[in-house]
Amino acid sequence: MRSADEFHLFDTTLRDGAQREGVSYSVTDKLAVAGLLDELGVRFIEGGWPGAMPKDTEFFARARTELDLRHAELVAFGATRKAGARVADDPQVRALMDAETPAVCLVAKSDVRHVERALRTSREENLAMVGDTVAHFVAAGRRVFLDCEHFFDGYAADPGYALEVVRTAFAAGADVVVLCDTNGGMLPSGVARTVTEVREKLGGSPRLGMHAQNDTSCAVANTIAAVEAGAMHVQGTANGYGERPGNADIFAIIGNLTTKLGHKVLPDGCLEKMVRVSHAIAEIANIAPDTHQAYVGASAFAHKAGLHASAIKVDPDLYNHVDPAIVGNDMRILVTEMAGRASVELKSRELGLDLAGRPDVLSAVTEQVKRKEAEGWSFEAADASFELLVRAALDGGPARPFTLESYRVIVEHREDGAVVSEATVKVRVRGERVIATGEGNGPVNALDAALRAALVRHYPGLSTVDLRDYKVRILEGSHGTGAVTRVLVESGGEQHNWTTVGVHENVVEASWHALVDALTYGVRNAEPARAGS
Amino acid sequence: MRSADEFHLFDTTLRDGAQREGVSYSVTDKLAVAGLLDELGVRFIEGGWPGAMPKDTEFFARARTELDLRHAELVAFGATRKAGARVADDPQVRALMDAETPAVCLVAKSDVRHVERALRTSREENLAMVGDTVAHFVAAGRRVFLDCEHFFDGYAADPGYALEVVRTAFAAGADVVVLCDTNGGMLPSGVARTVTEVREKLGGSPRLGMHAQNDTSCAVANTIAAVEAGAMHVQGTANGYGERPGNADIFAIIGNLTTKLGHKVLPDGCLEKMVRVSHAIAEIANIAPDTHQAYVGASAFAHKAGLHASAIKVDPDLYNHVDPAIVGNDMRILVTEMAGRASVELKSRELGLDLAGRPDVLSAVTEQVKRKEAEGWSFEAADASFELLVRAALDGGPARPFTLESYRVIVEHREDGAVVSEATVKVRVRGERVIATGEGNGPVNALDAALRAALVRHYPGLSTVDLRDYKVRILEGSHGTGAVTRVLVESGGEQHNWTTVGVHENVVEASWHALVDALTYGVRNAEPARAGS
Repeated sequence: MRSADEFHLFDTTLRDGAQREGVSYSVTDKLAVAGLLDELGVRFIEGGWPGAMPKDTEFFARARTELDLRHAELVAFGATRKAGARVADDPQVRALMDAETPAVCLVAKSDVRHVERALRTSREENLAMVGDTVAHFVAAGRRVFLDCEHFFDGYAADPGYALEVVRTAFAAGADVVVLCDTNGGMLPSGVARTVTEVREKLGGSPRLGMHAQNDTSCAVANTIAAVEAGAMHVQGTANGYGERPGNADIFAIIGNLTTKLGHKVLPDGCLEKMVRVSHAIAEIANIAPDTHQAYVGASAFAHKAGLHASAIKVDPDLYNHVDPAIVGNDMRILVTEMAGRASVELKSRELGLDLAGRPDVLSAVTEQVKRKEAEGWSFEAADASFELLVRAALDGGPARPFTLESYRVIVEHREDGAVVSEATVKVRVRGERVIATGEGNGPVNALDAALRAALVRHYPGLSTVDLRDYKVRILEGSHGTGAVTRVLVESGGEQHNWTTVGVHENVVEASWHALVDALTYGVRNAEPARAGS
Repeated sequence: MRSADEFHLFDTTLRDGAQREGVSYSVTDKLAVAGLLDELGVRFIEGGWPGAMPKDTEFFARARTELDLRHAELVAFGATRKAGARVADDPQVRALMDAETPAVCLVAKSDVRHVERALRTSREENLAMVGDTVAHFVAAGRRVFLDCEHFFDGYAADPGYALEVVRTAFAAGADVVVLCDTNGGMLPSGVARTVTEVREKLGGSPRLGMHAQNDTSCAVANTIAAVEAGAMHVQGTANGYGERPGNADIFAIIGNLTTKLGHKVLPDGCLEKMVRVSHAIAEIANIAPDTHQAYVGASAFAHKAGLHASAIKVDPDLYNHVDPAIVGNDMRILVTEMAGRASVELKSRELGLDLAGRPDVLSAVTEQVKRKEAEGWSFEAADASFELLVRAALDGGPARPFTLESYRVIVEHREDGAVVSEATVKVRVRGERVIATGEGNGPVNALDAALRAALVRHYPGLSTVDLRDYKVRILEGSHGTGAVTRVLVESGGEQHNWTTVGVHENVVEASWHALVDALTYGVRNAEPARAGS
């Protein structure tokens, strides 16, 4: 704990990052994102704003039983108490306490213009609000981070008052005071100057943090500048998601701090998870991963094979700013899809399938993944589909529990306003031809019901499997008609959940592919024989 | 000319930016991009590498007659002469001369390791290549820029040699020597340190340039740091397009230099063209504009309203780092979960609908938005649906161009493997009962085709409207069966795009709602009457 406290990697994907236009996480999504961030090894995960957002209140309640964090601690976010109220009576403060997180992050005004014009209270009352609220949580044994909203503008306008807010927070027991460039207008030189000045004026070794927004396209640089000037706590979000142009991308922050400045900010063995975690969170947020993102983008180390292809191959250090493998990425010379042998092998090993002694299988799977990814498939968030693909290659061919003859799905909006969906599937199961019909509240549910009905007599274990979540993405949507649809299906059994993928120009057929993988995986999982395999 | 020479905005979208994976400009595309960059007012446009790329040779030939530049000068790119050859005999040098541009940009090795290991020549010969080639073009009356490839790594490895390359170029008559962070591994503090040191060691006021790549997510910051350290020439690309994570985004560079550092880098009246030029170039490159791009993204100034909508309304300067209008952008308030009256009013005003004098309508819309958002609707990305909702409240009721009787959609996977979708809609249009059938590559396309077929005779303007993008989200996926599906449909006419939303437990019905809004909006838009409304 002591040494981890020398530097804080603080992730706010689930709170500030969720302000990104178009993003809307379910509670289940939030739990999955938190699990991924913990796997990556960040020190703190800010999960949301209990009280203000009902979904976030539920997230913290479920997190207590459903999240088993290995590296990170959860942080709940809230504001200082209302002006003129007693801190203990403030319902928002109570909701924050009730989240029962080991740490809380409080946002406070530090720009006197915001105090007077937005909050409409006095300079003194704002300081009292900061002091009271910090002390209240410290007294309850919580670690307190204080986010100074609009700090840099506030410091420029009235440095004395901005510093007074910082001093008040420290005096009340705050662990770290975070300087926020809330409107994102700063440049690195200004950040460095201000952080340096603030440290000098406070004296000692104040524990300062940095929260940057990307409105000048400098959020990562501003964060690095603050660290170089002495900040020991940095706030970022996965892939830089956030309001307006977003927050500082935590993957670029990690990459820069680790490989450029020699700060060890992740536990051993975690840096190489960056690419996978980045892409998996993008899938959950239902945002296409930025292929050109620094460090983690599929094209981050893609060189157009020009005059220097052979030189690059012989001497990659001359052309790459870091070795792509250390962040879990690959160098690509030709214009091909990602997934080299190394990442397939790494991924397989994670799933308990050792391909080290099977170069033939490794090659076959790598080729197949490349070919499918070129068609729009993505295995980043679809472990079950990837596992089926590797197992099929290991076993010498696909082992489906059934074969399809045909299906038909009908969706009707009737004259009386009722909307009904019905699906009929014709399949062969263990030599028997089975026709089954299912209804559902949509075409995919109906198809799922029909397929399950056809299979369940032969595979009774499927009766406990159900469809938990369903995500759809249109790829290359320049014209609706030419696009390809990618579907991710999350299924759950009694023990755990798994995700599968399907791609086709028709959303129903894409869903069918994902459902077939989902139930195939479910059948394999339900068979007692598999437990020992 | 003299004063314009004090600072160079040098655009390389068409040369280095064209290295971006997936980008392939035709010559006509290149001419269009050059025209847009000239309109924006950049000082130099690097158009390509004649000789190396046949398309670029043609570009320069056509540019002489087809491009009428008002602000910019064209630059052709090339390399220093081959080792051991006479400069006048080098075919690549000849092709560069034949491009007949007033200026050329020569790339040279400045990292001794690249000289020895990639170029496989001697330190001395490389210096001779630089000196000969620069002098050759200067003698022909051309202005010469020299790009020092991998300068920062080279300077770190062998500062004396790197400086010798710079000195050789200046001695031979180069106008500007550009320090390139070719592999993009630098951070701003290191750039500032190196540029400062180089200037000191060279003495006088050397005319230095900066070329940054975005591999640390700091390309813009590195460019700004170089300018702060004395560089007077910066190279960037539109939207940061380029190899790997790309180049420095010229729009963010312009925004930062102008609004943060007070450098006037564009002619009067040009700054506000940034958004339009950025999006137009994205269209030509066939890349979806990055909605979260600094300064020019559609979401760059989009605030999730929440608690502070009223404060933002009164005092936008407290929340925006610059006035969005000066770069041709708009502030947008997103109507979200926490929408109150203030944000509904503000949003309506953005859409040209003033509700200030209609508190009854404002209340009704606010209530309706809250109720619908509780059901899973989201208007933050669906301006067209929001506008229809407000207009319906203003006009006293919904004004749909048709009413639905029923529809039926069938998706079949046939025995021969073919997947087909077909939809039939029965609607009433202006008193007439219409039955129409459409096919598509999925249920939504089929439904869209059928509905459009039913309406187009009465509303011929719809023939130019099509479905551009389609997004699906399952909300609260705790159990597939209980989930609600939200669909966002982006449609486009001849002039602009609009987004609509639909929510239902059945994905097809949700899509239907979004399609109905999309075509209703399309009909209203296509009616000439609306232009004056």
